[in-house]
Amino acid sequence: MTSATAQPNEPGESTDSAEDRVRIFDTTLRDGEQAPGFSMDKRAKLCMAQALEALGVDVLEAGFPQASPDDFAAVEEIARSLRNTTVCALARCQTGDIDTAARALEHAHRSRIHLFLSTSPLHRQHKLGMSKQQVLDTAVASILHARKYCADIEFSAEDALRTEPEFLVEVFSAAIAAGATTVNVPDTVGYTTPAEIFELFSYLRQHVRDAHKAVFSSHCHDDLGMAVANSLAAVSGGARQVECTINGIGERAGNAALEEIVMALKVRAPRFGLRTRIDTHKLYPTSRLLSQLTGQTVQRNKAVVGDNAFAHESGIHQHGMLKHRSTYEIMRPEDVGIAETTLVLGKHSGRHALRQRLETLGHKLDDDAMDSVFKRFKALADRKREIRDEDLEALALGQDPDATGPWHLTQLNTNSHLGGSASASVKLRNEDGREVGEAAIGDGPVDAVLRAIERATGTNMVLTRFQVRAISEGGDAQGHAQLVARHATRDWHGSSVSTDIIEATAHAALAIVNRIERQNASPMETAA
Amino acid sequence: MTSATAQPNEPGESTDSAEDRVRIFDTTLRDGEQAPGFSMDKRAKLCMAQALEALGVDVLEAGFPQASPDDFAAVEEIARSLRNTTVCALARCQTGDIDTAARALEHAHRSRIHLFLSTSPLHRQHKLGMSKQQVLDTAVASILHARKYCADIEFSAEDALRTEPEFLVEVFSAAIAAGATTVNVPDTVGYTTPAEIFELFSYLRQHVRDAHKAVFSSHCHDDLGMAVANSLAAVSGGARQVECTINGIGERAGNAALEEIVMALKVRAPRFGLRTRIDTHKLYPTSRLLSQLTGQTVQRNKAVVGDNAFAHESGIHQHGMLKHRSTYEIMRPEDVGIAETTLVLGKHSGRHALRQRLETLGHKLDDDAMDSVFKRFKALADRKREIRDEDLEALALGQDPDATGPWHLTQLNTNSHLGGSASASVKLRNEDGREVGEAAIGDGPVDAVLRAIERATGTNMVLTRFQVRAISEGGDAQGHAQLVARHATRDWHGSSVSTDIIEATAHAALAIVNRIERQNASPMETAA
Repeated sequence: MTSATAQPNEPGESTDSAEDRVRIFDTTLRDGEQAPGFSMDKRAKLCMAQALEALGVDVLEAGFPQASPDDFAAVEEIARSLRNTTVCALARCQTGDIDTAARALEHAHRSRIHLFLSTSPLHRQHKLGMSKQQVLDTAVASILHARKYCADIEFSAEDALRTEPEFLVEVFSAAIAAGATTVNVPDTVGYTTPAEIFELFSYLRQHVRDAHKAVFSSHCHDDLGMAVANSLAAVSGGARQVECTINGIGERAGNAALEEIVMALKVRAPRFGLRTRIDTHKLYPTSRLLSQLTGQTVQRNKAVVGDNAFAHESGIHQHGMLKHRSTYEIMRPEDVGIAETTLVLGKHSGRHALRQRLETLGHKLDDDAMDSVFKRFKALADRKREIRDEDLEALALGQDPDATGPWHLTQLNTNSHLGGSASASVKLRNEDGREVGEAAIGDGPVDAVLRAIERATGTNMVLTRFQVRAISEGGDAQGHAQLVARHATRDWHGSSVSTDIIEATAHAALAIVNRIERQNASPMETAA
Repeated sequence: MTSATAQPNEPGESTDSAEDRVRIFDTTLRDGEQAPGFSMDKRAKLCMAQALEALGVDVLEAGFPQASPDDFAAVEEIARSLRNTTVCALARCQTGDIDTAARALEHAHRSRIHLFLSTSPLHRQHKLGMSKQQVLDTAVASILHARKYCADIEFSAEDALRTEPEFLVEVFSAAIAAGATTVNVPDTVGYTTPAEIFELFSYLRQHVRDAHKAVFSSHCHDDLGMAVANSLAAVSGGARQVECTINGIGERAGNAALEEIVMALKVRAPRFGLRTRIDTHKLYPTSRLLSQLTGQTVQRNKAVVGDNAFAHESGIHQHGMLKHRSTYEIMRPEDVGIAETTLVLGKHSGRHALRQRLETLGHKLDDDAMDSVFKRFKALADRKREIRDEDLEALALGQDPDATGPWHLTQLNTNSHLGGSASASVKLRNEDGREVGEAAIGDGPVDAVLRAIERATGTNMVLTRFQVRAISEGGDAQGHAQLVARHATRDWHGSSVSTDIIEATAHAALAIVNRIERQNASPMETAA
């Protein structure tokens, strides 16, 4: 292996806990990927690995080569591709696993073999059927074998948090003596608390022989919701590597979220006094990439990268925030790669927030006009779950946000055929009683309906976003269609709900066409 | 107000931090509901309030009556409806707010007025424009005014974690002297760490005058991913009320998640030595109810209530877990109201897990048959992201999981009309060359297609789940249809992807019909 001399720590770099850098060990492609729903193929893994290298992770765990031929191939490909990040492969303490891991890493620029073995009484008895001495011997033999291939060896004591601390001291002391350069203390079942893990790391750093020769690492799971706080407490206790994943994905409730750990260390830098090599501006794009590759989105209230992380609806808070950003904002959206604060407006929003948003949309109102718009806004907000830009524009233009004209749908026919080709015909009536009809073909009935409406109304739209979602269950469930289309130089939003998802799409598209026509019909209102 | 004599603590109950019960103050309907995307109407709020009372929350914050007429009406309705839970209304330290809150609570069996005022230097200067003395005077005057209506008064020092600790001592001492029975210490911006908040609570409990006369409360936000750990650290420091929400919803990154705090206190009871009154078996159903009411789901790797919280795909882990549950499971799914562990199978799954799942599905295989099925399973798992029950059944039955017959779709026509009524016609050919055609009407084209296929094949199915999801963007995006239908006494799964969502649905339904027919055609294969 060309990387046999690669070191986990740069020449002359201290591994002492007094050092001020925390290594970020990303296991999105191993612990993350093995969770249900998060499987990725080789192409997706390579794409993610390149994004993680650009993000600045120190070590990237690429997979478990012995698990399957696909895993092997993905690790091999990633090892060939990355230049700066250390590529790590997982292996049980078995010769076959280690040989396979080493083969997968053969072409890596920097590589690490990560060995793991259970150490807790429960696992020794029920999983391994091994005595303490057997665990010690197996760990040492495996490290010595792995060292033949690679100088950078991590040893993990699986279920460490439920292991006798004295035995952990024995195991890690032996592992370091055998050549392990990183020793990892996983909270495999997501069981510990910050106070407890802080005590454990402090104890280990003090009692493990030659502790300064290895980097201590934490690996926390989120079963009780404390993975991030536990990782940071481990760091306070002397850990200088944290194992984590993008979006906190991983087995069961997942691993500690990389973006939360990194931002906590940055926002609270005066308290922690530690830094990472992560380029925080790439956190949000990397999170989005993972969601796209796996089809699994983060929840709206997810810290740092969720849709609401930088959104403030409450009127009280918005007023405070707009007066002085730091009253409610401890980090700025641009710090994590989000373009600007998204103030989602709703019934709790204040006058201040409404005015600011309207100005962003190009509507500068005087105080009288603002009074009237704010009143209508409050009435609308009491009826609607969320106020969209389309509603605000209608209010500012003096339009009725509930207006549905000038065009109304009077007929809609779709024909769907095998192979994805479909046709649609629509008939529309406008407020003068004039009727127009048109037909079009498309990729599926949704596409065909959009094209028929474009033709019938003579409005050119380029669809930029489209989503249909069932909002309840059963054959007669309501479908919710949301569309964004570009016309002239801006985006227009439309949405509708119906048991018939094709009909919902048609109504959403027509809502956009109607708002465009209403604006064209009375351009003077813009000055309101 | 009938509840003027209601007390936050039962007669004779101590509020000393030595006491072993933590009060759960739920703010799902106030702090949770005011976040974008989580608005609920009065009916939804009442439904949620009743579920929260059944769950066993001690105090339920129902809203902020001054914010809007709708908020007022919801608080009033909830106050009338609940019997055991204390209903709380939020108010700024302003006479109007307090009078409105008291009116909304008039018919409550047990009520609380919750006053809040910013105390941090940043908020005093930029939000309130008040001096320290003005903050103190305003707090005291408001508490005295609120006491005229209600004996149970909570006072919150907004942005407490960024307030000078000595000033917090002054504020809380004055609040308790004025009659506040609960004092709340919010980490408004989600900024603190467990070690820090523990120190603060310890300091406050020690220095606030007559601290024993009030319950100390924490209110943590999750901006840095530590809300749950911080709440528990506050409890360790003497807090005996925790403010939290179902699914951790709330402003920005949300509040501390109720279900995680409650389960942490339960799972780690020997460490914390504290109890709550929550019926943990209702945690999962309550979480699901909130998702249904708001249309916002939790992420798959959410602790305690996420789809993966009790699912284990990894082969290594599954083997360990099936041998002895507690090797990887620190709480049981049934403890939180989930019927059983969902072992999702995939490429990391071991032989053990496969055998167990097949047995659950009614297939008991001998070792030779198991060898062959496991080999085919591994090959399939390398190609597919996730192995579904339908695939496993095909493998166990000796069927090709990729088989598409006997029926193939040769024609499909749907007609969609306004008002949700639609018709569909299908033509199917089976492997003998026989063709059948049928038509049906339905609520929308999806429903019509299902009914036409039922008629054409003579297979009776009751649709139990249906979802269509766009898996990419644009007019020609791929749609993914997933169906579950009941036939005879069991559920059958089918799914398909196409640019035409109607066609995807038809293929998914036909996949189910085909598997039913294949099984009927060769019942002997079941013995494989």
